[in-house]
Amino acid sequence: MRRANDVSAARRLSRSTLFGVLLACVALPGLARAADALPGWNDGPVKARIVDFVRSVTDPASKSYVPPTERIAVFDNDGTLWSEQPLYFQLAFALDRVKAMAPSHPEWKTQEPFKSVLARDMAGVAAAGEHGLLQMIAATHAGTTSEEFSGIVSSWLATARHPSLGKPYTELTYAPMKELLAYLRANGFKTYMVTGGGVEFVRAFSEQAYGVPPEQVVGSSIKTRYEVRDGKPVIVRLPEVEFIDDKAGKPVGINRYIGRRPILAFGNSDGDFEMLEYTTSGAGRRLGMLLRHDDGQREFAYDRKSSIGRLERGLDEAARRDWLIVSMKSDWRTVY
Amino acid sequence: MRRANDVSAARRLSRSTLFGVLLACVALPGLARAADALPGWNDGPVKARIVDFVRSVTDPASKSYVPPTERIAVFDNDGTLWSEQPLYFQLAFALDRVKAMAPSHPEWKTQEPFKSVLARDMAGVAAAGEHGLLQMIAATHAGTTSEEFSGIVSSWLATARHPSLGKPYTELTYAPMKELLAYLRANGFKTYMVTGGGVEFVRAFSEQAYGVPPEQVVGSSIKTRYEVRDGKPVIVRLPEVEFIDDKAGKPVGINRYIGRRPILAFGNSDGDFEMLEYTTSGAGRRLGMLLRHDDGQREFAYDRKSSIGRLERGLDEAARRDWLIVSMKSDWRTVY
Repeated sequence: MRRANDVSAARRLSRSTLFGVLLACVALPGLARAADALPGWNDGPVKARIVDFVRSVTDPASKSYVPPTERIAVFDNDGTLWSEQPLYFQLAFALDRVKAMAPSHPEWKTQEPFKSVLARDMAGVAAAGEHGLLQMIAATHAGTTSEEFSGIVSSWLATARHPSLGKPYTELTYAPMKELLAYLRANGFKTYMVTGGGVEFVRAFSEQAYGVPPEQVVGSSIKTRYEVRDGKPVIVRLPEVEFIDDKAGKPVGINRYIGRRPILAFGNSDGDFEMLEYTTSGAGRRLGMLLRHDDGQREFAYDRKSSIGRLERGLDEAARRDWLIVSMKSDWRTVY
Repeated sequence: MRRANDVSAARRLSRSTLFGVLLACVALPGLARAADALPGWNDGPVKARIVDFVRSVTDPASKSYVPPTERIAVFDNDGTLWSEQPLYFQLAFALDRVKAMAPSHPEWKTQEPFKSVLARDMAGVAAAGEHGLLQMIAATHAGTTSEEFSGIVSSWLATARHPSLGKPYTELTYAPMKELLAYLRANGFKTYMVTGGGVEFVRAFSEQAYGVPPEQVVGSSIKTRYEVRDGKPVIVRLPEVEFIDDKAGKPVGINRYIGRRPILAFGNSDGDFEMLEYTTSGAGRRLGMLLRHDDGQREFAYDRKSSIGRLERGLDEAARRDWLIVSMKSDWRTVY
């Protein structure tokens, strides 16, 4: 009996193994491919929901199917695609520019916020407030042509290092997010960045860093003017704010640049709240995600009380809005 | 001798025929395909230059090669992709909207420019000048959400007819231009519209009419605001001009929305001058084209003296700037 049982068990095993193999070949190739496409994400409900969402909007037989032209996915940049602590990287760029430009501006030695910047007195810079920040933006971001500005940003990115991590800023982009961008593009999505950062600052590296071309970057901007200088037509950057692509400005920017409501939005702070709200309230299936910075070991831990990247309303309302909270600590196998 | 000569000639012929066939199969498939791709264009120097340009920037062995991500082509709309006489079609839309909205606006009976519009007194409308036009735009283009506005435009396009040609406006798009757009896309170009018209007006039909998705339309705009109305997030259109995408505004709009200098630009009026100037002054091979409306038989004949679509500086400077003047009469086999 025992031997007969063994044979029978072996047969059952063999049959169920065969069944398993067949199932894997027939029913789950999508899952297998998806899992491979996101190796930096730990298996679990978050990854499963992302994969399920993508499968449901790309499967022509699904009632949630979305044609490729409408597969618009929008991503915040600071704190969502790359780090943003201890200060927005674009602010680090502005501070470095003040130092680099100081020799031609002797008046800055006595003039705020420049005086504090040059003295490395961050409390003094902060005390200069929004007015001081705008002065600094005007001094460091305007006065050049668009093409010159792009070159300045590229040179800075090639040499500047993060103050505590010691790495180039473009190495502080999140590997799991770049996988997600590529995975979405492989599934027919158009991936956009929708950033509070300056659009021409971000465009200088978006393609190389994330595979997002300049025309798919929506951001804050200063005014510009067309000019023919010595017979050469250029776009000149003016010291006046044109548009702030943050909070309620994000849906406005999306509507202006893209002209369609996205079906997927990914942010990390309350500055992204309206972008997620706008995205997820459209008809059909939608996905809103917020990255939670809860990994002080591998990155930085901050949320409700942070001055940079504060996430409070998003945490409070995520559950009732069916937004996905992504834990950097639990959901990511790697960070950079 | 004669017979020998005949045989020899036949052999030569046969050899040269064979050579010709081989050549056609091996060396000219690009030309053959290109010619087929533009059946609405007459053979001649204009068509040949377009085809040669596309071949040179797409051939990896060419010194003029441009990678696909940088193949940006920009097209004006009014008078370039569809007709613009006897008045811009968007103005016809505004006039029709005034008539449709009049029952809810009894005050318009005595208020210009509305009074003149309702009396079909175009001289009176013109007399109201730019201020009158802006009032009409505010009344007919603002006050709705973006999605509602898009629906209003679509309904209008479905029923309105051109005053003299009697056809729906979307049937007054130029067949040779749609072929050119498709030909460029088939060669890896991203095709953009850069229009003085309202961006949300044009986006309502750009994809269906031209295969240009909303995110590839750059245009004039009014301000908008994000609002949550009865729990539903919407973009509200405000009665205030934000941006005029015409003349020197076109390069500014291109830089803002696209963030790269195009390599091909196609317009028809002096409102497109700066767009062509900006495009064709970049490094590497570029192509600037102006459509000349010289076909009063099949369309409308106008150029230097027209109030709509005036082409004067462009004609004067085309030769020295190496811009291509496209004659509707000579270069197009068909118009609509």
